[in-house]
Amino acid sequence: MEFVLKIQKRFADTDMLGHVNNVNLQHYFDLGKSELFRQVVGGIEDHLSDTSLIIKAVHNVYESPVFMGQDTEVTTRIEKIGNSSLTILQTIRDASTGLINATSCCTMVCFSPKSGESKPIPDFWRKRFEETI
Amino acid sequence: MEFVLKIQKRFADTDMLGHVNNVNLQHYFDLGKSELFRQVVGGIEDHLSDTSLIIKAVHNVYESPVFMGQDTEVTTRIEKIGNSSLTILQTIRDASTGLINATSCCTMVCFSPKSGESKPIPDFWRKRFEETI
Amino acid sequence: MEFVLKIQKRFADTDMLGHVNNVNLQHYFDLGKSELFRQVVGGIEDHLSDTSLIIKAVHNVYESPVFMGQDTEVTTRIEKIGNSSLTILQTIRDASTGLINATSCCTMVCFSPKSGESKPIPDFWRKRFEETI
Amino acid sequence: MEFVLKIQKRFADTDMLGHVNNVNLQHYFDLGKSELFRQVVGGIEDHLSDTSLIIKAVHNVYESPVFMGQDTEVTTRIEKIGNSSLTILQTIRDASTGLINATSCCTMVCFSPKSGESKPIPDFWRKRFEETI
Repeated sequence: MEFVLKIQKRFADTDMLGHVNNVNLQHYFDLGKSELFRQVVGGIEDHLSDTSLIIKAVHNVYESPVFMGQDTEVTTRIEKIGNSSLTILQTIRDASTGLINATSCCTMVCFSPKSGESKPIPDFWRKRFEETI
Repeated sequence: MEFVLKIQKRFADTDMLGHVNNVNLQHYFDLGKSELFRQVVGGIEDHLSDTSLIIKAVHNVYESPVFMGQDTEVTTRIEKIGNSSLTILQTIRDASTGLINATSCCTMVCFSPKSGESKPIPDFWRKRFEETI
Repeated sequence: MEFVLKIQKRFADTDMLGHVNNVNLQHYFDLGKSELFRQVVGGIEDHLSDTSLIIKAVHNVYESPVFMGQDTEVTTRIEKIGNSSLTILQTIRDASTGLINATSCCTMVCFSPKSGESKPIPDFWRKRFEETI
Repeated sequence: MEFVLKIQKRFADTDMLGHVNNVNLQHYFDLGKSELFRQVVGGIEDHLSDTSLIIKAVHNVYESPVFMGQDTEVTTRIEKIGNSSLTILQTIRDASTGLINATSCCTMVCFSPKSGESKPIPDFWRKRFEETI
């Protein structure tokens, strides 16, 4: 299941090259993941003291610049659910033309802030995540 | 006493107008205040649970654009020490020519995170702050 | 006439104090101004080479912290139209309770990038701006 | 040859989890690359109209959080020089302990803004880049 979020761009997202700065595209990917978690499990912030999902790795490819005047959206879906990890695939694209500006593959790990170690994804999350695949 | 800090600009500080975005100049003012507090009282982070200095108001005037290639510094000094407030004056300027790009007057208030109310500036800070005037 | 825009907050807008960083609130004010210009004159980007509206001064007061979980909106209205300047009043507030988190009074100046000087607000903008007062 | 740059952290780099937000770490990697280009070829901004180096892909791994109070540096080196591409390896690490917080492998591509296509790395850059390997 693909979750789509329209991005509210900020003028300061652009840089002197005239388009959105690459680093700021990462905020768009972040917004997409938050939206997925919001829709699927009601957000992950409530469990922060006990169970956290942290970003372990990202692999981004930049295809074309994102311009300020363009309607931009981020798509997000869970690709794979491991014991303690999630693989998430995303694109940033032009909402009108569908042109893909950037893709991201991200590994998130379930983590216990108390022990400082990774932990299995809790069942109340796993079930919901599985329903999106 | 004026505290001067060289700014490490980031490419993403610029926007599509070709110079540093106004909003990001606020980060430079922030860095200047942190540097003053670091030099005068060893930073204010250690006391965060008990005593915090929060920004109550800022008044900025923008004089000229800040360009990426320009050596930029922020100057910071305490203008006035009230019972629970500080008035801080700052400039962002070209480190080579001295040309002023922006000025800021900021009111900070001493605050107790526990009570949620303002509180007098503690003596161990007040003395040090006074020595800079 | 008051223009209201819902803010799409980003997790990175927060800082280690647990709420939205003051500097990042400035992005919210920026978004509010862009929305007003979009609705009133179709945006000001098209005329950038000829006529620009730049921020000359801001005066912000911070009333209460903005939290991530809170629905946040920015309100924007033109307070005064001068020969070459606009005075704009804004608030950032909780969209549910109406609690005001911050207010901003901003002076923008009409500017000719070619001459590098301020210039009168062009008539095609002035009329539209006046209709909002 | 490894280029090392001390990072001037900004308070707003942190997020409500108490450490530097992952997205903002990308600014640190950016600073590292700019420093390498500054030292090796005097910066790449002068040639922007003719020859640009753009980021095509990044692969980051996050090892441990970066805290505000920690002295942080970014290390950068050119790993490989292709016909029109550079592979760059970076780390963000604790300047005192050497503890690695994050690593990045980035592919940059030489690009002609006029033709909109990739182009071979010009000789005046290639030689300098090769001397760093």
